Amino acid sequence: MSYKFPKDFLFGYSWSGFQFEMGLEGSEVPYSDWWVWVHDQENIIAGLVSGDLPENGPGYWHLYKQDHDIAESLGMNAIRGCVEWARIFPKPTFDVSVDVERDEDDNIIRVDVPEPAIEKLEKIADMEAVKHYREIFADWKERGKTFILNLYHWPLPLWLHDPIKVRKFGPDRAPSGWLDDRSVVEFAKFAAFISYHFDDLVDMWSTMNEPNVVYQQGYINFKSGFPPGYLSFEASIKAAKNMIQAHARAYDAIKAYSKKPVGLIYAFAWIETFDEKLEEQVNNIKNQVLYAFIDAVYAGRTLGTEERKDLKGRLDWIGVNYYSRHVFGEKDGKLTMLDGYGFNCPPGGYCRSGRPASDFGWEIYPEGLGKLLREIASRYNVPLMVTENGIADETDRYRSCYLVSHLYEVYKAVKDGLNVKGYLHWSLTDNYEWAQGFRKRFGLVYIDYNTKKRYLRPSAFIYKEIAKNKEIPEELSHLTNIDALARK
Amino acid sequence: MSYKFPKDFLFGYSWSGFQFEMGLEGSEVPYSDWWVWVHDQENIIAGLVSGDLPENGPGYWHLYKQDHDIAESLGMNAIRGCVEWARIFPKPTFDVSVDVERDEDDNIIRVDVPEPAIEKLEKIADMEAVKHYREIFADWKERGKTFILNLYHWPLPLWLHDPIKVRKFGPDRAPSGWLDDRSVVEFAKFAAFISYHFDDLVDMWSTMNEPNVVYQQGYINFKSGFPPGYLSFEASIKAAKNMIQAHARAYDAIKAYSKKPVGLIYAFAWIETFDEKLEEQVNNIKNQVLYAFIDAVYAGRTLGTEERKDLKGRLDWIGVNYYSRHVFGEKDGKLTMLDGYGFNCPPGGYCRSGRPASDFGWEIYPEGLGKLLREIASRYNVPLMVTENGIADETDRYRSCYLVSHLYEVYKAVKDGLNVKGYLHWSLTDNYEWAQGFRKRFGLVYIDYNTKKRYLRPSAFIYKEIAKNKEIPEELSHLTNIDALARK
Amino acid sequence: MSYKFPKDFLFGYSWSGFQFEMGLEGSEVPYSDWWVWVHDQENIIAGLVSGDLPENGPGYWHLYKQDHDIAESLGMNAIRGCVEWARIFPKPTFDVSVDVERDEDDNIIRVDVPEPAIEKLEKIADMEAVKHYREIFADWKERGKTFILNLYHWPLPLWLHDPIKVRKFGPDRAPSGWLDDRSVVEFAKFAAFISYHFDDLVDMWSTMNEPNVVYQQGYINFKSGFPPGYLSFEASIKAAKNMIQAHARAYDAIKAYSKKPVGLIYAFAWIETFDEKLEEQVNNIKNQVLYAFIDAVYAGRTLGTEERKDLKGRLDWIGVNYYSRHVFGEKDGKLTMLDGYGFNCPPGGYCRSGRPASDFGWEIYPEGLGKLLREIASRYNVPLMVTENGIADETDRYRSCYLVSHLYEVYKAVKDGLNVKGYLHWSLTDNYEWAQGFRKRFGLVYIDYNTKKRYLRPSAFIYKEIAKNKEIPEELSHLTNIDALARK
Amino acid sequence: MSYKFPKDFLFGYSWSGFQFEMGLEGSEVPYSDWWVWVHDQENIIAGLVSGDLPENGPGYWHLYKQDHDIAESLGMNAIRGCVEWARIFPKPTFDVSVDVERDEDDNIIRVDVPEPAIEKLEKIADMEAVKHYREIFADWKERGKTFILNLYHWPLPLWLHDPIKVRKFGPDRAPSGWLDDRSVVEFAKFAAFISYHFDDLVDMWSTMNEPNVVYQQGYINFKSGFPPGYLSFEASIKAAKNMIQAHARAYDAIKAYSKKPVGLIYAFAWIETFDEKLEEQVNNIKNQVLYAFIDAVYAGRTLGTEERKDLKGRLDWIGVNYYSRHVFGEKDGKLTMLDGYGFNCPPGGYCRSGRPASDFGWEIYPEGLGKLLREIASRYNVPLMVTENGIADETDRYRSCYLVSHLYEVYKAVKDGLNVKGYLHWSLTDNYEWAQGFRKRFGLVYIDYNTKKRYLRPSAFIYKEIAKNKEIPEELSHLTNIDALARK
Repeated sequence: MSYKFPKDFLFGYSWSGFQFEMGLEGSEVPYSDWWVWVHDQENIIAGLVSGDLPENGPGYWHLYKQDHDIAESLGMNAIRGCVEWARIFPKPTFDVSVDVERDEDDNIIRVDVPEPAIEKLEKIADMEAVKHYREIFADWKERGKTFILNLYHWPLPLWLHDPIKVRKFGPDRAPSGWLDDRSVVEFAKFAAFISYHFDDLVDMWSTMNEPNVVYQQGYINFKSGFPPGYLSFEASIKAAKNMIQAHARAYDAIKAYSKKPVGLIYAFAWIETFDEKLEEQVNNIKNQVLYAFIDAVYAGRTLGTEERKDLKGRLDWIGVNYYSRHVFGEKDGKLTMLDGYGFNCPPGGYCRSGRPASDFGWEIYPEGLGKLLREIASRYNVPLMVTENGIADETDRYRSCYLVSHLYEVYKAVKDGLNVKGYLHWSLTDNYEWAQGFRKRFGLVYIDYNTKKRYLRPSAFIYKEIAKNKEIPEELSHLTNIDALARK
Repeated sequence: MSYKFPKDFLFGYSWSGFQFEMGLEGSEVPYSDWWVWVHDQENIIAGLVSGDLPENGPGYWHLYKQDHDIAESLGMNAIRGCVEWARIFPKPTFDVSVDVERDEDDNIIRVDVPEPAIEKLEKIADMEAVKHYREIFADWKERGKTFILNLYHWPLPLWLHDPIKVRKFGPDRAPSGWLDDRSVVEFAKFAAFISYHFDDLVDMWSTMNEPNVVYQQGYINFKSGFPPGYLSFEASIKAAKNMIQAHARAYDAIKAYSKKPVGLIYAFAWIETFDEKLEEQVNNIKNQVLYAFIDAVYAGRTLGTEERKDLKGRLDWIGVNYYSRHVFGEKDGKLTMLDGYGFNCPPGGYCRSGRPASDFGWEIYPEGLGKLLREIASRYNVPLMVTENGIADETDRYRSCYLVSHLYEVYKAVKDGLNVKGYLHWSLTDNYEWAQGFRKRFGLVYIDYNTKKRYLRPSAFIYKEIAKNKEIPEELSHLTNIDALARK
Repeated sequence: MSYKFPKDFLFGYSWSGFQFEMGLEGSEVPYSDWWVWVHDQENIIAGLVSGDLPENGPGYWHLYKQDHDIAESLGMNAIRGCVEWARIFPKPTFDVSVDVERDEDDNIIRVDVPEPAIEKLEKIADMEAVKHYREIFADWKERGKTFILNLYHWPLPLWLHDPIKVRKFGPDRAPSGWLDDRSVVEFAKFAAFISYHFDDLVDMWSTMNEPNVVYQQGYINFKSGFPPGYLSFEASIKAAKNMIQAHARAYDAIKAYSKKPVGLIYAFAWIETFDEKLEEQVNNIKNQVLYAFIDAVYAGRTLGTEERKDLKGRLDWIGVNYYSRHVFGEKDGKLTMLDGYGFNCPPGGYCRSGRPASDFGWEIYPEGLGKLLREIASRYNVPLMVTENGIADETDRYRSCYLVSHLYEVYKAVKDGLNVKGYLHWSLTDNYEWAQGFRKRFGLVYIDYNTKKRYLRPSAFIYKEIAKNKEIPEELSHLTNIDALARK
Repeated sequence: MSYKFPKDFLFGYSWSGFQFEMGLEGSEVPYSDWWVWVHDQENIIAGLVSGDLPENGPGYWHLYKQDHDIAESLGMNAIRGCVEWARIFPKPTFDVSVDVERDEDDNIIRVDVPEPAIEKLEKIADMEAVKHYREIFADWKERGKTFILNLYHWPLPLWLHDPIKVRKFGPDRAPSGWLDDRSVVEFAKFAAFISYHFDDLVDMWSTMNEPNVVYQQGYINFKSGFPPGYLSFEASIKAAKNMIQAHARAYDAIKAYSKKPVGLIYAFAWIETFDEKLEEQVNNIKNQVLYAFIDAVYAGRTLGTEERKDLKGRLDWIGVNYYSRHVFGEKDGKLTMLDGYGFNCPPGGYCRSGRPASDFGWEIYPEGLGKLLREIASRYNVPLMVTENGIADETDRYRSCYLVSHLYEVYKAVKDGLNVKGYLHWSLTDNYEWAQGFRKRFGLVYIDYNTKKRYLRPSAFIYKEIAKNKEIPEELSHLTNIDALARK
């Protein structure tokens, strides 16, 4: 039995600016919160960040042709990339005035960025960077492939967010990023500017990648080493609220200059419990963690308010990033995420399920992707795309099986009639894994960071076999059985 | 061959207030920075603290007689305890005015706390707590044993230090503990008060336990979960400076009402490198990390200043807390603490040396204690005492061997003429391991926290065999060989 | 809660000749099958035996007083020892004629060994060895303790069994030990001789230790390295049959000169399945493996024959040796012993139950002892005694918990009315573990084989605490919880 | 840097009859020693063999076309196969008389098998099997590829060797295979017969595969479960001697009907010590274990005799089978193979070198292949070929790196001028691993034994990339670094 995907199914990979672009001289963007954050000596000494530096990264800014060649040779027909806000706008855009409407609750319900404003933005922008991005994207488009452009993949310009100052003096005495509602307006300007300049090269738009990770890791999950490392539930909620508005305003701004679908890429995980009596509680968590943000921009539903029309209907497609699951249980009478499952496994060891954990300590759990796609599809009537899926596996011992078993879940979802448009692996090459630096390697392609040379891992050949014919051929169908990897 | 200790050698254990006292109703002290810190929901959710609560602890406040009985039955003749500042002074002592002298650099070089001030302090103090502490200490002294009293074992009164506010708003907008030089003065008042009230029950005094951990973990080693979790090299240095002054002023204050020796208990570790070319660098680290604080209060030496007479000579003995080592090496051209050695080992696993790691992930390295005692003794001409040494080992699989191998190092040091007065194990019973809560168990005695019942671990019998005759008898001398535990 | 044993409960240990006696010059017995077997270069090279040699052993033959002193100091009041057949009779006893009766099936149903025969045996015997054994046993008896003497603990005289020749030429062309029914007669002579000479020093007799291991490991479980390593189901059955007869004839022979109870020590294990549909099959295995031998000498039942009166009623007590369990399951449609349970676990690792495995790879499963004692007691109406129980645990990390948890099972059995007379640990000291040599260490007492010095392991103190007061005191009752050792 | 092999370099795989042919109805050969051995219930119960049965194997006898297709698609241009003696001659060939010459020491120095004898052999032979073998070989040859035929790959006809009888009654009372010097003559007849019938399809001949394993595992290394499991140094030496003669006589017999090169395939390993003072001893072992057999048939040198001209010069090429190394050291004063290195590692775990061990517990040590090829080449002036190299790695986590790192060693050897003709992987597909059965999987291709379906493992694509262009391309050159797999 082979497993065939639709003819127009997209096979590709995703990349982001901060993690991929830098590496060769002239590619640095030292104007972002993340740049400052990972270079901060206190952060490094405290172990909040790895000490690895993004300027020693893959060098995609210069080597994009080579990576596109490899992607093409592996049968890929789609890429999701991004533009770095701080690269385009190293200096503030505050002074470009635009028309902003607020409701009685001070919500930002409209931002207009007309062409004159865009012309003013061009004077602030680094137009060389704009030009170079166009070369990168065009190189891919000229191959007749699909290109998806995402606007925000985590770094904020330093003029908008100074994470070290926030950590030291509090958000009220520092540029505070998403805690400052001016971020909503500035993001709308940025979105309009990008839509205006790049729409001809773009097939699908996304406003943001994993906003939930930003407001979760930045303000709550302290130890993960995300800026600003400012522990505050209140701040997390405020950031989330502003990001929701920012998405909606960016949606409108893109649409002002584009007719392409505009979506959102979200960090999903399968969330479950083995304990029946906890199911309701866990369902509440799921609604909160997985669906509250999307509910807002899909249906205008937000907590404690009436329907917001300014948010509603701002979602043409959903990008699903999936890596593993969370399993909840009870310990000492408290609901808790269980050790030994999902993201709480020993790095490079084995999970309680017997399945191996990745170098990151993440359980390999493809079933979760299948269940999740069904759940999302039943909730939102828009096309889906798997926009990230992959494994930190330096020696490639599990990646082939990880890949095929997850693709098999996607296959089954499509076969059952779900509108899933494609699968973008994270990622083509090794890259800079945020606070973890270079040690977590997610590439089908191994990078020697000293020479910037690319080497194919065995799993790259497996990807190719599948992508080039858009099917999991029978001779690879044994790799759908992830339990073959389980501890004996 | 048996190994005999001197007849007057002290065998005992150490305890601290926050970790041991609470557990039964009426023992809570909710007025300290640590109390607030470990109860903070944001800290718990962020994983900075365990979620275990000290009010579910061993209950020593009520059960002290039982623990003293056990200690006596195990042949112990010495205890090192402490008084909780916030228990004695739940309310501020700022308003009790005392005579404070500062030098031209604004250093606090003298604080006088005469009897009238003490009378005023009595009106603020919880005199019931004073009385109860006297009962606890008297119960031990009446057995004819040695009692060592330490004044500060980490929690600060909340009126002096609000760690949540420091973390959120910065130290300039919150009671900032050791960052505020008023802490020096208030600590001197506290010291005088305690000396005045308890000197009759005390054989030796210590001002502080492991000040270096407080300013290291609180301001630099973020992930350890110590208050205030405020990452700042500058703050760390300032806290250190104030703690040095606080020690000196407390030394003077104790001496005003006591003729007993006053010492300091410090968190030592053996620090080394296997790489000859790094030796000088590592030596500098050692001087900084292990000896700078003690140099100041022993010889008046401080960085960048001339000799401070107000600090010099304030040290009658040194308490050595020892658990494991740090091994430095080079990685990617940078000096770094090596993984797989010392405190950087897999919890419950094995170290690169082949030695087992404790439940905490700390290498068992008794040789380090021997080398360290020699190094300290050659540097400072005061008596030494091992004031903490022990292992997180819930199932007691390594504790007997840990204990005997470390005692053997002490034996050899004494035999070679070093003036080491005693060995205090950490600890008699399981207790509250700060941010780690109850999961790290350091007791010779296991505690069932639900019932507060005490149970003897096998290693307790080994301690007894040695303590009761003050020798490692030949029939236990095989336990000096820690390499018997190494991975085969 | 403490757990009290009856006042007359026996606490002690077991030893055997081959494993303990040798070590110092003059103690060697080079006339037995096991001596030849473990010295055989082909066996050593093939890895059937360890290459360790018994003449480098504990040296009990000379150091017995010292071991008895330790046993007494640990509160022990009972020892089970043995006499080495080949030490007493290095030369054949065939020529001492005795009256032998056979039935129509050629079964040996009676052997009389009257005093004149014993006098002839004395001329063949090494009477110096007899004298020395008396000194050893008397040293213990003079302490007012209980002594249990077992006649056969595995080595056979070489004149009766040459295992190398059996392996090379087949049992029909070599002295074949228990495959030769003359062994029954010679064993009866030996038994009569020992009863005649030692009965005054003996409180209870046992004919054999673990006959089932001899005919199982010697003829079936090839890889265990037991002589003669001759794989043959038929041979195994024949040896079993002769050992049953040998027990019965030895029983009679002992009784001729003694009024003490005569029992049998058997290697039990708890046998079970988790799969309901296999229960009947597994029950059949249990009946075969655990009970067929004892059924024969208790009730005269043997396979395929009518009741044999000459066997029936030859059992005054049963010695229960218990270490772990066997778990049966189905694999590829076949009934099989499951990996990861009982005796099939990774040495020094963890079992599927989460419980640790001993250095031998044996699961710690105390529940099995409790269930087994109940099953045996319901089947046979004779007193029981735990005659072996212990763990290969060189570093003593599990032994205390192993000991207490198994004793707790015995306590509960006694409390429920079972007639269990005592608990004999295997063993006081490290000793020669047959084909495994010295690497598997079962002692409460560690032996340095180079110096023959004895050192106490921590578990020895636990044994002492329990044995001296005949109770598991409350303060050690936490050690009954073996699951505290389970993998977290 | 890419690593290019010569244009005529052979890339292929090896298979053997017993391990591959059976699986589908009609392919069974129940007339061999190995068939009887692995079906023997006593062997199975004793754990000497796995209980897996070869008749459930890969089914190559019927599915050869499919496997040849896969091999071709992977770029392979060479196969080494074999003919099963017992399949061709299920009945004795003793009665076909041939001219045999012996020297004064009774050595067999000449066997002539003229055409009339071959005609008589045809009457005994299973000519259907001959025909089917021709179909198999022709299917490969018709693809224009190289075919190497080996005559003996371990199973002997039962009429020549009954291993169960040897084990039970001794070799003097059973057909004893290589212990009987008639085996030399019968093997010569078989060789002549095969040469006569198949030479047109064959490019290179080999007489035997790994004779050293046969006489080592069969008579010494008991626990490996090889027939006849008869422990005897003498028997091992005798078998070796007969196999040397059998090779020489088969060489002559093949040559009588063929002009192709005739070689020998030997089980090599790299043998070394880290202890300088043991080097001489270890060198002697090496000479004995690795080179004595080949010295005999290359130069006529044998132990304790003068040069034998009847042996000398019977070697046109050497087949090198290589898997791992042996490391010798001293333990307790004795020379011993060290645990944790080479073949003595924990299955699926890690070696002391930090390198991973295969599912078999074999260290990955490619350096050994390079050193060995050099050593062999410096000793014998004949072409070499790597005839087996591979890894038991069910989930393919190490195979790609194993493959490339070993091929890199071969590349360097060739580049340095060594005459290495090709590399044959063990193996294309999973197969029956002798006493270990189906659990050790060596295939680039996974087999589902229930359906006999073939599935490609990721490493198959790596093999293909290299074989099709006869180079390790730069993009795979990172896989030469086996230390990337080492435990961190």
